[in-house]
Amino acid sequence: MAEHEELPAGAGRDAIDELNGIRQSIDNIDAALIHMLAERFKFTQQVGRLKARHGLPAADPARELQQIQRLRALAEEARLDPGFAEKFLNFIVAEVIHHHVAIAGGQPGVGDGQAPGAAIGVMPDSAIGAPAPATAEPAGPAS
Amino acid sequence: MAEHEELPAGAGRDAIDELNGIRQSIDNIDAALIHMLAERFKFTQQVGRLKARHGLPAADPARELQQIQRLRALAEEARLDPGFAEKFLNFIVAEVIHHHVAIAGGQPGVGDGQAPGAAIGVMPDSAIGAPAPATAEPAGPAS
Repeated sequence: MAEHEELPAGAGRDAIDELNGIRQSIDNIDAALIHMLAERFKFTQQVGRLKARHGLPAADPARELQQIQRLRALAEEARLDPGFAEKFLNFIVAEVIHHHVAIAGGQPGVGDGQAPGAAIGVMPDSAIGAPAPATAEPAGPAS
Repeated sequence: MAEHEELPAGAGRDAIDELNGIRQSIDNIDAALIHMLAERFKFTQQVGRLKARHGLPAADPARELQQIQRLRALAEEARLDPGFAEKFLNFIVAEVIHHHVAIAGGQPGVGDGQAPGAAIGVMPDSAIGAPAPATAEPAGPAS
């Protein structure tokens, strides 16, 4: 928490307390988001491995369209901008795709947003077929 | 669910069943992510309104740095690439900032990633000071 922040002139202790309280809520949500994203990438990697194992096509446009439509509808119910929800899904999928080449190791057909086995966002121990190293350097778009 | 998808030659019923099961899990996670993002934007808008009300500065670099460091540490624990976690936070913050001008309505100083009042990603009824219309057109970066 930003308990140490300076009190701007005129803000008042109550305002700062309220701000800190809201920030604690934002922090809780961010922690939840991070952990759920971790799980999501584990699942998409499972999809990647399964597809590689069974020769299933990487891309599945019908599935992708259905995902977008579903998330947009859920966003509307949650009072979240459906355009943003779609943009968010595309952001996640782009990260999965971006790294699939590096991780898939030459397995043809592995490369849709569902799952490449791309350890996008996930530590390399989740790569297709690779054993899990105990202390792997994290791989990912920004590291 | 993609129950209707065509069975690629050689895939086998078991593989498709397994794929559908994993996709159901991904769908559950995506629904949870959408709802939590909705709540996050409600909180950041509260921050925006509070800051506007009390003349607090929009940007808070110390807070932003702390958020990044905290999320990177949580990502490591969750076996998620910390670089991706940081990229994700920046993605969310960028969306909030991108629309704050449109929503803030000329309130100086309102514009950091914490909250502008930017109905980024949120239906306009959450804009600073605006009453909630019953059926507002969604506003947002991609709609």
